[in-house]
Formats: sequence, structure tokens, C-alpha cells
Amino acid sequence: MKLLAILEYDGTDFAGFQVQRDARSVQGELERVIEQVTRDHVRVTAGGRTDAGVHALRQGASFTIPSEWSLADLQRALNAVLPRDVAVHELYCVGEDFSARYSALSRLYRYTIWNAPQRSPLHERYALHVAERLDERAMDAAAKSLVGERDFRAFGSPPQGENAVREMKRAETRRESEFVLIDLEANAFLHRMVRRIVGTLLVVGRGEMKAEEMPDVLAGKRRAGTAVNPQGLCLVSVKYDLDVGQ
Amino acid sequence: MKLLAILEYDGTDFAGFQVQRDARSVQGELERVIEQVTRDHVRVTAGGRTDAGVHALRQGASFTIPSEWSLADLQRALNAVLPRDVAVHELYCVGEDFSARYSALSRLYRYTIWNAPQRSPLHERYALHVAERLDERAMDAAAKSLVGERDFRAFGSPPQGENAVREMKRAETRRESEFVLIDLEANAFLHRMVRRIVGTLLVVGRGEMKAEEMPDVLAGKRRAGTAVNPQGLCLVSVKYDLDVGQ
Repeated sequence: MKLLAILEYDGTDFAGFQVQRDARSVQGELERVIEQVTRDHVRVTAGGRTDAGVHALRQGASFTIPSEWSLADLQRALNAVLPRDVAVHELYCVGEDFSARYSALSRLYRYTIWNAPQRSPLHERYALHVAERLDERAMDAAAKSLVGERDFRAFGSPPQGENAVREMKRAETRRESEFVLIDLEANAFLHRMVRRIVGTLLVVGRGEMKAEEMPDVLAGKRRAGTAVNPQGLCLVSVKYDLDVGQ
Repeated sequence: MKLLAILEYDGTDFAGFQVQRDARSVQGELERVIEQVTRDHVRVTAGGRTDAGVHALRQGASFTIPSEWSLADLQRALNAVLPRDVAVHELYCVGEDFSARYSALSRLYRYTIWNAPQRSPLHERYALHVAERLDERAMDAAAKSLVGERDFRAFGSPPQGENAVREMKRAETRRESEFVLIDLEANAFLHRMVRRIVGTLLVVGRGEMKAEEMPDVLAGKRRAGTAVNPQGLCLVSVKYDLDVGQ
């Protein structure tokens, strides 16, 4: 039967979602634990392939196991053996043609900035420290100008043979006391696209570029900012139309 | 000159505040870094001696350096060499008779519980997971019954030669979505007292003891709960009357 697992993980000690030789990956841990519990060697597909150090609150992961299981029993068994930095929050039975990657309608990422004069050891793990006070309104205006179906090649490269057109459904920046939060939701993202957009929004937030110049970056007339560090990035959710599979 | 530093730290990788042989301590790191910067070997005194794994948002630490320094320069220099899990947020010049420990008017601790059916890898580091839904109102009533000047020997042992009377200034429990937060402020605490009080409040929150039975625990007629894990505990602040020293 084909299953969709909704996962939370702390990305700090992972080399990313995807299996890599000689490095700890979320996929590797999950496949190891599924084999340990079900005795089946499976291949797991992710809703969004997070890079090294990137966290996830609700990542999607699909896989097929030959044997029948009660979903509640399997979830309990997986959580009992998974390491402390990964947990399965939900488990759905889906159709054979479902894929955590190709059936995803959109991905929502959040980037967290600790915007205070001094670094904070207690927020270090999940936020980027920016000492200079950021103009979150200018950043919000710049972010919103990215909404729509656009060619995002200025912010990342598409896989070979694909174009760089993606649909940005939501892009906003807001302040919550000393945190500046950037939410980006798109049907799909190019590699490093979220972190390069955030890097560019930081240039705006520092007053070194105007929000109205964002279209120039999209058009390739102005360079995008450099990609920010992964620890502030979290894949908040992957949206699926689960009526299809359930 | 005598100084008071206000420190933040992530306690996860420390064996506690106090210097210990062959173990990493906040005091040890701080003394090492002060010596590196000022060339003076100093002894640091803490506002509250946090145990292994306990965090601090605003811990007080006093020490004397023979040479004169600009406070801003010294703070910058210390933060530049301190490890990532400790930071100096403020630095005050205080009187010679000031002590971070003995001049403290009160200590405020917060204990954070992640109260949801499943464990959360992203909250694991700073909260205790309790799967069973807690009754935070009963816990709040039980906590409030501890306010006042009382003998707290049921919750911990005093240092040799001292009594166990402490003044609890504030004790409350509240829920913020899936978090249950317990705030305890007292002039001083016995060793492990916060974590044993929280352990007892958990017994109340699970419905295994009534809030009205809390005085029986104080009176030694009923056993206190076992101490909870340190990772949910944070020393939020140490209060000083800084007019004295400045």
C-alpha cells in the first residue's frame, strides 16, 4: 500500500533530506526505520527536498510498503525508533499514482530573522541574526511584487530540461517583536530560490535597494542578493489535495 | 572595577553554570574568555546557579577586573570570543560590595511544556513533551497556593546551615496554544526546587492530585512529584536594584 507521512524535523544535524553517501539524511533515517519496522526496503519521495540545515514542520514523504498495516500502529512503531530530531505527525493511505513530490499543490517556506542588536544563543538554531534594524515594510512590498507566475531564473537554476517559471502564490514579510518573518508559498521552488529571495529582501530591508527595484532583479537587470544561511529556513507545509488518495 | 554581566545561554551543552573539573560550564567559558580579553584571571559569581541543561535568558554574573575598560569595548570583545551558545547582553559597572548572588532581589524561572499528542523535534531542545492533555487551570490554582513566605523543604534541600524558608513572589501556569508555561519567581530557590514544583504541578495537571492538596505537600503530608527534565527550564531573569551599584 502507498502511504504519505507528514514529518517534522530539526535539520541542524542532517546533510539535507536526500540520501547521500557518508552523510546523515532525513530520507536515510526514514528508510532505515521503515525497513527496521516493516522488514521492507523502501524508497521515500519528499514533497520538498530541503538542503542541509533546513528544518521542516510538515514535510510530505511518500513510500510504498508491500504488507498491510494499521496506520496508527505503524506511526507509533516508526516514532518509537526514529531519532529525536525526526517525528511522523500523520500517516495517510494514498492512491498508487500519488507522489509526495508530483502531487504537491504548493510548498510554504518560512524564513526567520532575529533582528536585534545582539545575537541570541537561544534563537541561534532556528533564526538568522541581523543586528541592523530592518525595514520590514519595504521588505514586504518587495516580497509582494514577486507574487504571480514568473520566470525566477534570477534566483536559482531549474533542473536540466525544465524552465524556471514558477507560480508564487504568497510572499510576505512581517515583524513580531524582534523577529522578522518571511513567508513564501509557490507551486514549486528552484534550488536555493527561497534563500536567494530572502538575501535580496535583506538588501531591501537594509535600505540598499528600493522595493520597486525588485522587478529589475527578476528581469536580470540587477543581481539578486546572496543566499542566506539555512538555519533560519523551515518548510512549514506541503499542500496536497488528499481527497484524491484517501 | 566590579562588573555585572547579563548573560543569555543555551544550557544544552553545558554541565551547568558552576565550574566543574573535566566538564564544560558557563562559568568556565566566561572566566576563560575574560582572561583572554583582559589578561586577568577572575572569579565569576552567578545570580542563580543553573543545573546541567538549564537555559538562561538573563542570568546575572559579577566579577572584578583590575584594569579600566570601556564597558562597550569590553562587551564587544567578550562577545567576539565567547562560543555561540553564550552571549553578554549588558554590562554594568557596580559597587565593590555588589554580588550577582547576594545582591539579587529575586529570580524568575520559566518551565515550558510542549503539551501535544506527539513529540516535536523543533521544540525538543527547550520544552518537556507531555502527550496527555494537562489541566492548566488546576495547575495554576495549585501554583498560586505556593505564593508567600513558606518553608519549601518538601521541594528541595537548603545549603548546610541554612533554613528552607523562601518567599515565593509569583507562581502561575498558563496555556499558549500547545505550550503550557509555568512561571515561578522567588527571592531564592532551593536546589532542584523549581523542577520538583513543576513535577508536582504535573501530577495536578494530570488529575492525579487536586490543587487544594498542594498545602499537604508543603506540609510534608504528601510527597512532592519527581523533578522534571532540565531542558524545559529557563532562568528568565535575576532582579537587581541597580541604582545601588551604578
